[in-house]
Amino acid sequence: MGTGEFDLIARIRARVGTRGDVVLGIGDDAALLAPPPGKQLVVTADTLNDGIHFPHDTAPADLGWKALAVNLSDLAAMGAAPTWCTLSLSLPQSDAAWIDGFLDGFLDLAARHGIALVGGDTTRGPLSISVTAMGLVEPGEPLRRDGARIGDDIWVTGTLGDAAGGLALLDRASGGALRERLDRPTPRVLAGRALRGIASACVDVSDGLLADLGHIALYSGVGARVDVDALPASDALCDAFDGPTRIALQAGGGDDYELCFTAPADARALVEAVSSKLCLRITRIGRIVADEGVQPVRTDGEPWTPPRRGYDHFVTS
Amino acid sequence: MGTGEFDLIARIRARVGTRGDVVLGIGDDAALLAPPPGKQLVVTADTLNDGIHFPHDTAPADLGWKALAVNLSDLAAMGAAPTWCTLSLSLPQSDAAWIDGFLDGFLDLAARHGIALVGGDTTRGPLSISVTAMGLVEPGEPLRRDGARIGDDIWVTGTLGDAAGGLALLDRASGGALRERLDRPTPRVLAGRALRGIASACVDVSDGLLADLGHIALYSGVGARVDVDALPASDALCDAFDGPTRIALQAGGGDDYELCFTAPADARALVEAVSSKLCLRITRIGRIVADEGVQPVRTDGEPWTPPRRGYDHFVTS
Repeated sequence: MGTGEFDLIARIRARVGTRGDVVLGIGDDAALLAPPPGKQLVVTADTLNDGIHFPHDTAPADLGWKALAVNLSDLAAMGAAPTWCTLSLSLPQSDAAWIDGFLDGFLDLAARHGIALVGGDTTRGPLSISVTAMGLVEPGEPLRRDGARIGDDIWVTGTLGDAAGGLALLDRASGGALRERLDRPTPRVLAGRALRGIASACVDVSDGLLADLGHIALYSGVGARVDVDALPASDALCDAFDGPTRIALQAGGGDDYELCFTAPADARALVEAVSSKLCLRITRIGRIVADEGVQPVRTDGEPWTPPRRGYDHFVTS
Repeated sequence: MGTGEFDLIARIRARVGTRGDVVLGIGDDAALLAPPPGKQLVVTADTLNDGIHFPHDTAPADLGWKALAVNLSDLAAMGAAPTWCTLSLSLPQSDAAWIDGFLDGFLDLAARHGIALVGGDTTRGPLSISVTAMGLVEPGEPLRRDGARIGDDIWVTGTLGDAAGGLALLDRASGGALRERLDRPTPRVLAGRALRGIASACVDVSDGLLADLGHIALYSGVGARVDVDALPASDALCDAFDGPTRIALQAGGGDDYELCFTAPADARALVEAVSSKLCLRITRIGRIVADEGVQPVRTDGEPWTPPRRGYDHFVTS
């Protein structure tokens, strides 16, 4: 308590890892980095605000993890290899124990993906965490939103709806595995890397499957037909919710940070090989069609109406 | 009012400028950029929070300007050429008019420096603006904090204390020119570029001259003797404050975003040529010495005691 800004920065600086391409990390007016020749730079920025993007009781270590994870997820959706990040942290008061906990989660995930924290600032204000993450790709390799073609399969990694399920169960004791998925999402960085040259378009599922798939449809100028009965569910989600609620959570719930991607039908064996190699469930959930928009249907072809389409931070549904 | 996140992003996207090295700007999971070969990347991140970093009544256009300016100032202090930036904006409610005003200021300054806004996010939360700015330098060119040598001159661009004076006069009608300096600081990007190869160390004056010069002293392992009577003052500051108060504002006040740098004594003509070429006042204010720390003195050599050393965001003075 009572630790000043410069002490907090010193505390952060003492713990961060580095990389060979970091010429100058935390401590000067700006970081100095040496990108390798010929690569393209991938840059994304995402903010988490108290009570909006995470429950108020979230542990500092989980917040540290999640603040980086949501940014790594965007890099994953581009097929990029994570390299460097900055952290802007607003805290109501200076609290060394809080910072230490936050760094436990943030730096644990950073080390797993070899990303170096190279700068940022700490300021006084309502709890808010902004991260900008950078990564590298070869030109021509990035997974974009605009490459889906009619006839492509639609796939999704992992399972859907767990984070939204965890949020719905906040007040119940039973939310353990789901709450873990809400607090500690797994950015699919390895999957994004492996899908370069296979996926025709890719997004991460942050706002909800149907909403995020809508971006692929819109940018690619196509439609997407999704079989909601085919959406992958975890055992924990199946145990906690009845069928209709479960499907609504899977189709519309945000914060899963899985990858939703399209690929030509003749690439199925390649996708399955990625799944097998990474030991990661990858499920075919639909097909790109000519009609505009996202069309959720049951297996029998009947339309399915979502109670809620994604999560818009400025619209209370 | 009631505009959703995606509408706000569309609003921003429709107005941003671009550059030839932006492969993919706002709209995908991340931006895709093509750094030129052989350059080093300079990265900085700074946040402005409502009531902490700016008065609550600050106009949206001024906020947009300042949020970018404080980051450009860090790039300037490294001698970097600005290239790209991201913007993470937390707003209590979605407000299209507010966003339009904010963009007026932000994009005006961005266009002046040829920096492209390539990504970020808009979220609900207490008003907070986080910008990460990137720039490029040739290897070996960056102005760092750790290069000051004993006997070097200490210089500062522009005038000091105006922003702190403007803040002190918030409740008075007379703060016009000073308030302008508080709300619309001028990042010294051209000066930073021109000082490559001349300055031995450089910082921007964001927390207050003595505090920021302290970083140069600490990182360079030297001391700094500053003649507080030599600190450059604007006419507006002289008109508004008596001598002792004025000096305190100049030596300790934050938010000026001038550059404070050191250079060998035999580089005086080069510094004066930069001043003349840029039509920018650059004043010699002291000398690097062997003793540790920053020593503010009067012209007669008597020590001057600052009422406040810089501004620490977590310490209320």
